[in-house]
Amino acid sequence: MEIDLKYVADGTITSPSGFLAGSTYSGLKTTGKEIADLSILYSEVACVAAGMFTANRIKAAPVVLCQKHLQERRAQALVANSGCANACTGEQGFADAVEMATLTAGKLRISPQEVLVASTGIIGMPMPMEHIRDGITRIALSPQGGHNLARAIMTTDTFPKETAVVVGIGESEVTIGGVAKGAGMIHPNLATLLCFLATDAFIEAEFAQVALKKAVDISFNMITIDGDTSPNDTVLLLANGLANNQRIEAGTSEAEIFQAALEEVCSYLAKCVARDGEGATKLTRVTVEGALSWSDARMAARTIASSPLVKAAVHGCDPNWGRIMAALGRSGAEIVEPKIDLYLDNLCLLKSGCPLKFDHEEARMILSNDEVPIRVCLNLGKESATAWGCDLSEEYVTINSERKT
Amino acid sequence: MEIDLKYVADGTITSPSGFLAGSTYSGLKTTGKEIADLSILYSEVACVAAGMFTANRIKAAPVVLCQKHLQERRAQALVANSGCANACTGEQGFADAVEMATLTAGKLRISPQEVLVASTGIIGMPMPMEHIRDGITRIALSPQGGHNLARAIMTTDTFPKETAVVVGIGESEVTIGGVAKGAGMIHPNLATLLCFLATDAFIEAEFAQVALKKAVDISFNMITIDGDTSPNDTVLLLANGLANNQRIEAGTSEAEIFQAALEEVCSYLAKCVARDGEGATKLTRVTVEGALSWSDARMAARTIASSPLVKAAVHGCDPNWGRIMAALGRSGAEIVEPKIDLYLDNLCLLKSGCPLKFDHEEARMILSNDEVPIRVCLNLGKESATAWGCDLSEEYVTINSERKT
Repeated sequence: MEIDLKYVADGTITSPSGFLAGSTYSGLKTTGKEIADLSILYSEVACVAAGMFTANRIKAAPVVLCQKHLQERRAQALVANSGCANACTGEQGFADAVEMATLTAGKLRISPQEVLVASTGIIGMPMPMEHIRDGITRIALSPQGGHNLARAIMTTDTFPKETAVVVGIGESEVTIGGVAKGAGMIHPNLATLLCFLATDAFIEAEFAQVALKKAVDISFNMITIDGDTSPNDTVLLLANGLANNQRIEAGTSEAEIFQAALEEVCSYLAKCVARDGEGATKLTRVTVEGALSWSDARMAARTIASSPLVKAAVHGCDPNWGRIMAALGRSGAEIVEPKIDLYLDNLCLLKSGCPLKFDHEEARMILSNDEVPIRVCLNLGKESATAWGCDLSEEYVTINSERKT
Repeated sequence: MEIDLKYVADGTITSPSGFLAGSTYSGLKTTGKEIADLSILYSEVACVAAGMFTANRIKAAPVVLCQKHLQERRAQALVANSGCANACTGEQGFADAVEMATLTAGKLRISPQEVLVASTGIIGMPMPMEHIRDGITRIALSPQGGHNLARAIMTTDTFPKETAVVVGIGESEVTIGGVAKGAGMIHPNLATLLCFLATDAFIEAEFAQVALKKAVDISFNMITIDGDTSPNDTVLLLANGLANNQRIEAGTSEAEIFQAALEEVCSYLAKCVARDGEGATKLTRVTVEGALSWSDARMAARTIASSPLVKAAVHGCDPNWGRIMAALGRSGAEIVEPKIDLYLDNLCLLKSGCPLKFDHEEARMILSNDEVPIRVCLNLGKESATAWGCDLSEEYVTINSERKT
């Protein structure tokens, strides 16, 4: 479907009407530098709210709290910190997450039930609540605060990830903005990924949850850094209705437009996260076409994008299609070897399962680009899927072997 | 079961009676150095034979050929090369594997059906048959040839992997010898792993296959280097019966002794392979106890051992138990967070799901060892499993990002 979608200049999570944000340095990060680590997002009116969370069986306290608070599908604010994950922290950890919601609610004069909480950082460290208590009182909210919030949730990220789009829905213009953080532990099914989405659209609550799940499935669930997942992964959507559009209900053409715009924002942010994988120097885009099922296409694309050997080959600009084939073969997807075609961008390396003589310099050029497109045609069916990943560099190992505990 | 098992001094695959081996440099490896790359193992009499092969859906030509030749569960020789995997090589590749068997059979005056073939090296490269043809004629067999064979199958391995044990079975002494190669792409369910086992035991053919599968499941299928698997993984067992023992049948105490000895040899070789992972500087041993099922224990141990973040932490001697918990949480194994205990050797880091204050210097000492034991007690059931892996170093990336195609 063609939709009339525009990116907002300098767009962020406070671009939609009625959203304010603020951040502060509370002392959670032990880098020595005073980098903001605590922030609040607030909507002037109560919102319809939806969330998607980690598939890891070890769930951080704020994840458990969000799932509880979202039962009513309503929220008006969220408080987020970096530096401490509040995971594997037992009952005290849960009590701390509750206190973070309560303090934020007190400051904003709303109910604690309407505050969502998200944390990212070191696992197993007790939440330094004295810093949090001080920090929350100091945060000043503003309609320009989204940019600072995008920075305050960063951990090993090297750049903030934020955007906003505007789309016409009926007679109204609706804005969707978002911020995300990623870097290590990113893998399909979410991983120390935080993403907050805000919109001024007026949407039906059940539809909000369904739309968010669908958007996450084709975006954040299709990126991979290292195959590890975190207990803290959280994607939240707040919709305050201030665009004054007619309420968007599932199954309508308005819902389709909203879905497409939400997917655009999520895909943009997901690609930013993949590109900024720890030690990454480029983005890999793996498309698998002609699969018997979407699930096959998805498994194959994700397995190729997350293979350490494929990632190392991409890093070294080596057109090592054998590793791509080996990853495809172990992905679990239905394949017939003599039917497979394999491309680097438009350069065919393998046709009907047989290696072609190809121009190695051209292959090397494609692999040197900022974005490396790998395409596999299974020629069995009509389903396709795209996964995003990054290369594997020596720096990834250096970052992750430094002592953190 | 206690068995009386002795390691043979300088043991290798030709330690059992009646086995000869030989190797040559045929020109398959393009390293510039004349390193042996082609070898033959031969038994003076026909053998009962068993095999285990890659789970990858992309199967190399020699794997397909071995599966065909093993239908009768008999063989008398094997020919193996390094430098070229003969995978993704289409019909010509299969014809080349057949020709390798035929040439070897001609040299040894046996039937081509009785020759097994194994290849390892670059995927997609056509087998340089002119080198193979010359090489096979040049190979001289000797009862001391096992050591050279162990070297000739190496690719990025840094040391040869070989051993042999002697065990009393009834009135007879039976010897089992083996060689293996590994390095990159090693993962549970086999991966550019070649392992050849020879024994002079007289064993029933169906039992040989069952015993091999069981031994591989607790050894080679429990090691992991990088999560990638190869189209060439092969474990072969040849049993020539020259020990003159009473034939070993399934379900007897003699079968139990043979099984234990075979598992000892496989575990020894598997640990050598894990320790020699590309860029590895130490061996990781992950034991998961108290699981509800063996399959849970196995999944959990393998997921922890293969987590890039855990591996990088082990490399940096960082007692980052949060990453171990995160890997455990995504493994799919049944867990109850407040029941989990976690140890580095005998140092408890986490008790009933809660982090303990522990001596970081002691933890660092344990992590600095040549072998790092990680132990997780789920406290849910009685099943346990052990997986072996290695640390993740910058060198792994350097090795694998060099241009190979």
